[in-house]
Amino acid sequence: MSDPSFERIAIIGAGLIGSSIARAAKAYGAAGSISLYDVSDDVRARAAGLGLGEVAGTLADAVKDADCVILCVPVGALEAVSKAAVPHMKAGAVLTDVGSVKKQAADALASADDGRVHIIPGHPIAGTEQSGPEAGFPTLFRDAWYILTPQDGKGEDYAEAVQRLTEFWAALGSKVETMDPGRHDRVLAITSHLPHLIAFNIVATAFDMETVEQGEVVKFSAGGFRDFTRIAASDPVMWRDVFLNNKEAVLECLGRFSEDLAALQRAIRWGDGDYLMQEFTRARTIRKAVIDAGQDSGAVNFGRNQNGTKGAP
Amino acid sequence: MSDPSFERIAIIGAGLIGSSIARAAKAYGAAGSISLYDVSDDVRARAAGLGLGEVAGTLADAVKDADCVILCVPVGALEAVSKAAVPHMKAGAVLTDVGSVKKQAADALASADDGRVHIIPGHPIAGTEQSGPEAGFPTLFRDAWYILTPQDGKGEDYAEAVQRLTEFWAALGSKVETMDPGRHDRVLAITSHLPHLIAFNIVATAFDMETVEQGEVVKFSAGGFRDFTRIAASDPVMWRDVFLNNKEAVLECLGRFSEDLAALQRAIRWGDGDYLMQEFTRARTIRKAVIDAGQDSGAVNFGRNQNGTKGAP
Repeated sequence: MSDPSFERIAIIGAGLIGSSIARAAKAYGAAGSISLYDVSDDVRARAAGLGLGEVAGTLADAVKDADCVILCVPVGALEAVSKAAVPHMKAGAVLTDVGSVKKQAADALASADDGRVHIIPGHPIAGTEQSGPEAGFPTLFRDAWYILTPQDGKGEDYAEAVQRLTEFWAALGSKVETMDPGRHDRVLAITSHLPHLIAFNIVATAFDMETVEQGEVVKFSAGGFRDFTRIAASDPVMWRDVFLNNKEAVLECLGRFSEDLAALQRAIRWGDGDYLMQEFTRARTIRKAVIDAGQDSGAVNFGRNQNGTKGAP
Repeated sequence: MSDPSFERIAIIGAGLIGSSIARAAKAYGAAGSISLYDVSDDVRARAAGLGLGEVAGTLADAVKDADCVILCVPVGALEAVSKAAVPHMKAGAVLTDVGSVKKQAADALASADDGRVHIIPGHPIAGTEQSGPEAGFPTLFRDAWYILTPQDGKGEDYAEAVQRLTEFWAALGSKVETMDPGRHDRVLAITSHLPHLIAFNIVATAFDMETVEQGEVVKFSAGGFRDFTRIAASDPVMWRDVFLNNKEAVLECLGRFSEDLAALQRAIRWGDGDYLMQEFTRARTIRKAVIDAGQDSGAVNFGRNQNGTKGAP
């Protein structure tokens, strides 16, 4: 085990991601010590019971000695939490986050910038549908992508801070990539945000069908529906904030999705089997690309739970 | 191992389902002997190489001594195959299928009825995104639901045939349920057909986004998209036939899905976080119902491959 990337990290928000970072940083020796804070008394008590780190009574106490502060809170809370944290942080420390939207996150973190800390937004492409401090596990980030969206026009100290944060995430097992926040948001809108919205929607639609009993929907969910219920089980607050803060890119994807769906609908109504064949065959080819790229070899952790088992479609 | 439910079965179509039935019937002793036929020379040769059963050179040879003929072909092919098979079948034998749509399947099988055979349509709620004789495995049907849609107004011989077919599927590990074909089609439209259509559509939409490179879509697919690519990898011919033959129920679900999605889209555009929270929270509750019902405990096999591993969302 090499030297820790940071002597001390502070994790703010002890949910699935925060508690996974705590467990992983400890397991892989990526931090010398770990302080934790959560706005909820209950979550703080549970985090303490789980031995995730030194649970602080206030945000200020949690961040004051940290070399890196990692905000693991919903995107909508980032600005307030950043502003509350930065005045108590050490000069030269890193402020980062794990938000699923990066343009808004970058703005939120930057709004707290007092020139003393290094602001480096980030986002792990990993997760499960579980929430809370008990849901985390140390291997969540192994072999998963981690996207950093560093600020432009910064000096040598900043570059060095980015390097240390990159090493930290590499120590947790992630493949780290840097990207422009706008590009991140467009890529994630189609690879993550739209799929989640669709999953939330199909589950709600199914349960409003008067012609089919809810018990039957559940009973025969192995036909494909079950997969969507798993995706749709993700944290509602986190996802509300994602959609409110990546509005433009999500609406663009959604518009295209609806147009394409209307074309399939028309083909079904008019019995156009050739069109259906063409589109279904194309989708199958794309699946092959995902497999060929090793993105479904079990090497990526999204959806894997603590036992390493995975959900089924 | 008890006595086989049928002395001899004939499996027509040696794809994922047909080859899984062959493997399961052998593994669990559910049939005394197995004959197989596939319209493709290549598939017949591969089935023979895999030792799935006695591969016949013609459909007539395959069915002539069978006590139960199981048609494992796309729904669109059922009528022609039934008409080709029935004249060569033994009197009193069972003719069944595994089609994902049951009203059309029932009509297709009934169109070949010459009064000598027992027609009992059926459908396993199990499968994977794989196709072909190599994709099958003997445990595919274990703990999965199997739906039979028997004909009305039949006599004692027919009831006895239904009983034997039920025992056959129970021997393969399935939980057998009988249902009216129209109800089956409405339930499956929402639990299976719509989810597959949505998956096909989102995958195609993603790959038409000019603002995002296809390589990025694949690379960051762990954010949720990957799940959809797996579902969308299913056999295009099978699914084309499903949508062409369950048009009414699918269009009804699709109309509701699109309305609900438009409401979410509007909430995103206007920043209505309360509506998003309400809908996302509701979807999460439904997931809980699926888990409580034991439908995602690993007890159902859809999406599980030969090694018992599962895909990841």
